[in-house]
Amino acid sequence: MDLSRAAAAALDDADPLAAFRARFTGVDDGLYLDGNSLGRLPVETPAAVARVVEQEWGRGLVGSWSSWVEQSRRIGDLLADGVLGARPGEVLVSDTTSVDLYKLLVAGAGARPGRDVLVCCADDFPTDRYVVAGVAEARGMTVRELPADIDEGLDPAVLAAALDERVAVVVLSAVAYRSGALADIDAVTRVVHDAGALVLWDLSHAAGSVPVELGATGADLAVGCTYKYLNGGPGAPAFLYVRTDLQEQLRSPIQGWFGQRDQFDMGPVYEPAEGIERFGVGTPPVLGMAAVEVGAGLVAEAGIDRLAAKGRAMGELVVALGDAWLAPQGVTLASPRDPGRRGSHVTFAHPEAWQLTQALVDRGVVPDFRTPDRVRLGPAPLYTRFVDVWDAMDRCRTLLAHGGWQDYPAERARVT
Amino acid sequence: MDLSRAAAAALDDADPLAAFRARFTGVDDGLYLDGNSLGRLPVETPAAVARVVEQEWGRGLVGSWSSWVEQSRRIGDLLADGVLGARPGEVLVSDTTSVDLYKLLVAGAGARPGRDVLVCCADDFPTDRYVVAGVAEARGMTVRELPADIDEGLDPAVLAAALDERVAVVVLSAVAYRSGALADIDAVTRVVHDAGALVLWDLSHAAGSVPVELGATGADLAVGCTYKYLNGGPGAPAFLYVRTDLQEQLRSPIQGWFGQRDQFDMGPVYEPAEGIERFGVGTPPVLGMAAVEVGAGLVAEAGIDRLAAKGRAMGELVVALGDAWLAPQGVTLASPRDPGRRGSHVTFAHPEAWQLTQALVDRGVVPDFRTPDRVRLGPAPLYTRFVDVWDAMDRCRTLLAHGGWQDYPAERARVT
Repeated sequence: MDLSRAAAAALDDADPLAAFRARFTGVDDGLYLDGNSLGRLPVETPAAVARVVEQEWGRGLVGSWSSWVEQSRRIGDLLADGVLGARPGEVLVSDTTSVDLYKLLVAGAGARPGRDVLVCCADDFPTDRYVVAGVAEARGMTVRELPADIDEGLDPAVLAAALDERVAVVVLSAVAYRSGALADIDAVTRVVHDAGALVLWDLSHAAGSVPVELGATGADLAVGCTYKYLNGGPGAPAFLYVRTDLQEQLRSPIQGWFGQRDQFDMGPVYEPAEGIERFGVGTPPVLGMAAVEVGAGLVAEAGIDRLAAKGRAMGELVVALGDAWLAPQGVTLASPRDPGRRGSHVTFAHPEAWQLTQALVDRGVVPDFRTPDRVRLGPAPLYTRFVDVWDAMDRCRTLLAHGGWQDYPAERARVT
Repeated sequence: MDLSRAAAAALDDADPLAAFRARFTGVDDGLYLDGNSLGRLPVETPAAVARVVEQEWGRGLVGSWSSWVEQSRRIGDLLADGVLGARPGEVLVSDTTSVDLYKLLVAGAGARPGRDVLVCCADDFPTDRYVVAGVAEARGMTVRELPADIDEGLDPAVLAAALDERVAVVVLSAVAYRSGALADIDAVTRVVHDAGALVLWDLSHAAGSVPVELGATGADLAVGCTYKYLNGGPGAPAFLYVRTDLQEQLRSPIQGWFGQRDQFDMGPVYEPAEGIERFGVGTPPVLGMAAVEVGAGLVAEAGIDRLAAKGRAMGELVVALGDAWLAPQGVTLASPRDPGRRGSHVTFAHPEAWQLTQALVDRGVVPDFRTPDRVRLGPAPLYTRFVDVWDAMDRCRTLLAHGGWQDYPAERARVT
């Protein structure tokens, strides 16, 4: 690979997604490689949010309810078709990823009576492991936390060996939050189904970065975040997916009025709505929804295959530059080397990763620190250029060559 | 009572809250008597939301996390002090009313082991009853749904008779969503505590309309909505309250990373945060939070005693005009007649209530229809004038006198 900046610029010239950069704000302010944590603000979003605030709320008042009650389903359908490879009526936008995970996990366990084991990955994102532990404790179930290589992800053979007729639900991230390792979705689905269990995917780092194809892979359940690659904004509502033929079998543990069949009849007895709406709970966060609709729309417009291809190419550039420039300075790759086994972010290990992260931020590069000693780089195919990746890696190289990060506190502040 | 429009105007002239009307948008557009369903948009809110979108998100990006992780607690403290009569660290803004109710109900039942009954009111808001039913079913508990007069509310003697050593938690609305009946909070708390149970208040129609005084009344748990009298906007995040000395005994069933002690350490085992933060779950809806902060700030600034006094006075005017003008036309009061036993909304019954509601909307008056045959009027003390109440009642009188509502469909559309 040609590692010159000119070669990176040539990749930008040939980038079919290049025009999307102008659809985001602040793209010339610094080298932001944290789009996998919080995506940038689309240019259209402030007006879309203001329209909801000033027109729908300010002027429409309760007259706008007819729009708001359809929002969760409407944006869910947009995600289903444009991002997740699912069918209309299989995706709902509501609550947070944690709450949605809880709902589907309890519902899934309830659909596998007599089975008393939940499976998750010991290296999965904290909220996933915590939710699984809480549900297991409340239901008198056991958790099997599978060991996973924190760089390479979960080996399907390890998973297969852990499955038996006691397992009700397997919770896994499609793309690992730390390493970016991409799960072998087909293989996982096959072994889980062979064991008669349900698979519940956390798509937080996958939605908008890799082709998910929930329908084609036979996925059972899924949840995910919309404020990462989907650019829905801080604390944006999450999405949940339930395969059509499973919906009637599943009952949400939180029987809210937005999951009720004839919601505004306000009848005496809870009777779940027929379709995906049964997994709704309370009034959805209308303001945040407007931002999700814009962000998800941009991803759908760009096309997930093109996004994934560019994400993979940017990842290959990060890895190649890391090998050439950073490895000699004691930085090691902490993601799968095979680009086909990665999402769109790449992680490196260094004993002073936290100090390096702080120094990089002061030098105009925004990566993410992750425990225990990782620096995570998440270029976002919608608005990050190949030259941005090159420049960011160049600044890493310069920092490592000239030092200076050692002056930063080794102790982490509460929020990173 | 002088029922002339001039008398209403004189009340406005003497209103110490009159200046707050200018702090809301659209106040001259129609006679909006649905502030108890969705409060109006404060003038400051669009800029506050835009600042979060454009500055905190657009420019600050992940650097704004330090503000966002404190938001739930900071706005909770504002509500505690300015609206709910609670102490700092007792209120958290997060999720929806339904999800918060679920969390506290499960947590409360868990703190009363060996007790297998949940009590609620047969006439309570649907989501409350549905959540109670779902929790009871999942935990193998029994629900005692108490009969209540749908106009007068729950009789504390009926409640007392239903309580025994099997009852774990009693869920009640402080102000009934349909009739506006105000519960006898002191009496209820006393009989519930005498039975060794916990009381969980739904304050959705009470917060911002009546003095709640959670601390003084010895309340155990509470949840509530912020988009009604608190003017936080459609789908705004809800609040939850847990009395300080109970917090350590209660465990949220949804163990999300926002409830974890050292959230960003991302440690292997869930360990609940020490204070009210343990009832957090996922990333809070940051955009909606900005609107809640403005709305709650206005209520705190106006002062709950002044708001309640004006709300009561407006309710008395509604009742008096109803007696004089509507009762002769077959409209009957469907709220407690004693103003000390009402929140800030007043409800009437009429066999064609749904048709009347539609006709009133077309005549510039926005009330709310509620099953089975009720028209609910919710003047909001922050921005509704006494002359607005007079004018709205005058249009009701005219409509009833001249007819025309019979032309509207008797069949209700899905959303009212």
